Amino acid sequence: MEKMVTAGVILIGDELLSGRTQDTNLGTIAKFLEPLGVSIGEARIISDKAEIIRDTVKAFSDRFDYVFTTGGIGPTHDDITADCIAAAFDLGISERDDAIEALRERYSLEELNEARRRMARIPDGASLIKNPVSQAPGFQTNNVFTLAGVPQIMRGMLEDIPHRIKGGAMIFSINVTAEGIGEGDAAKGLAEIEKAHPGVSLGSYPFFNDALRGVNFVARGRDEDVLEKVEAALTSLIAQLNE
Amino acid sequence: MEKMVTAGVILIGDELLSGRTQDTNLGTIAKFLEPLGVSIGEARIISDKAEIIRDTVKAFSDRFDYVFTTGGIGPTHDDITADCIAAAFDLGISERDDAIEALRERYSLEELNEARRRMARIPDGASLIKNPVSQAPGFQTNNVFTLAGVPQIMRGMLEDIPHRIKGGAMIFSINVTAEGIGEGDAAKGLAEIEKAHPGVSLGSYPFFNDALRGVNFVARGRDEDVLEKVEAALTSLIAQLNE
Repeated sequence: MEKMVTAGVILIGDELLSGRTQDTNLGTIAKFLEPLGVSIGEARIISDKAEIIRDTVKAFSDRFDYVFTTGGIGPTHDDITADCIAAAFDLGISERDDAIEALRERYSLEELNEARRRMARIPDGASLIKNPVSQAPGFQTNNVFTLAGVPQIMRGMLEDIPHRIKGGAMIFSINVTAEGIGEGDAAKGLAEIEKAHPGVSLGSYPFFNDALRGVNFVARGRDEDVLEKVEAALTSLIAQLNE
Repeated sequence: MEKMVTAGVILIGDELLSGRTQDTNLGTIAKFLEPLGVSIGEARIISDKAEIIRDTVKAFSDRFDYVFTTGGIGPTHDDITADCIAAAFDLGISERDDAIEALRERYSLEELNEARRRMARIPDGASLIKNPVSQAPGFQTNNVFTLAGVPQIMRGMLEDIPHRIKGGAMIFSINVTAEGIGEGDAAKGLAEIEKAHPGVSLGSYPFFNDALRGVNFVARGRDEDVLEKVEAALTSLIAQLNE
């Protein structure tokens, strides 16, 4: 059996914790990783505090095959992610020519002030990740990918990631919707179906509309044939509950 | 000076990590806590694994004044949060009459099957949190509030929380939008403004529309008079940059 390949995601920024900004990057990264056979094991939303960023990066780098960070690589005083990544791996950090070159595609020499040059400070030995939106690069340090927080830019940077990832077995999923059924009606049958199909994880997600309640069942696994059987079993469970 | 009161949020569910479901509960909890003077220090999105839930609850309960968990308290086999909370605090857990009573408001005795009775299993000594949407209660164990994952239900449960919270000083915020300005142009002035106004944290959030770029500045602090001065300083910084 192929090895499970996992990723940890670290979303950095006080604005995510204050409720001012709604994160969408986690979902984007998850959907990007799925066809590569990488699943996300945990995500943390942390504040712009140097020690917490550093310690979280260190812990996640040990625990997961890959780590993604978003946020904190802009030009302002609260953009401290690059320094924290360097600290997590005991690396030096300095302004790099290749990063300045990337910035020069966007900024004139005059515009490239001290604040913007901060965006060219890269941990020693890291490889740059292209930013097709606003040029200031992300970077890869060991198994950690450091990306921008702005969703459009983050998405653009992901384009420069796939060749860096050694993925695992593809995970497939099927989805069956049961209208007019309560989660508690299906729970027993659901547990039986999961038990009968090892390697499949089965989730149930109740929904409530104005007039309607129902449950979405999602089965995930590596074997498409088994998932087909699970789909049939779910459909017959629903039919039975609706009798 | 009043003490900072902090909360940790634990969002439980594989569906959040797979990108299938977009979390909105974190933002809802943040906005609910803000007028109570409680700010969120960290949030974690974790999978439905018993050990991870238990260890995260334990760590957050020590680290923050209050902890909120969402998800995993329904009737199906993957709903294991209540057991994990009990394990985190070395408590027993059993079906409780007051919880059954709450469920009976919704379910007939016949509908109250084994699966649904699971929702009445509550850690010893916990106090119930009312669920005005679908009756199955949440509960409070020490400083940990265990809530449903479905956003409508989670919001309903928050109504039964305020009297349980001893909040801190109110945090106020102001927002200034600068159109046509790059974050890097403002960075130096921004750092100076923050330095000149202790107790204020200043964030800058660049945005890109089709035709327009700009930055939103957000200042947060406990003193409204100081924030007014920060607002004036930001406005004059923007005017200066636009000259």
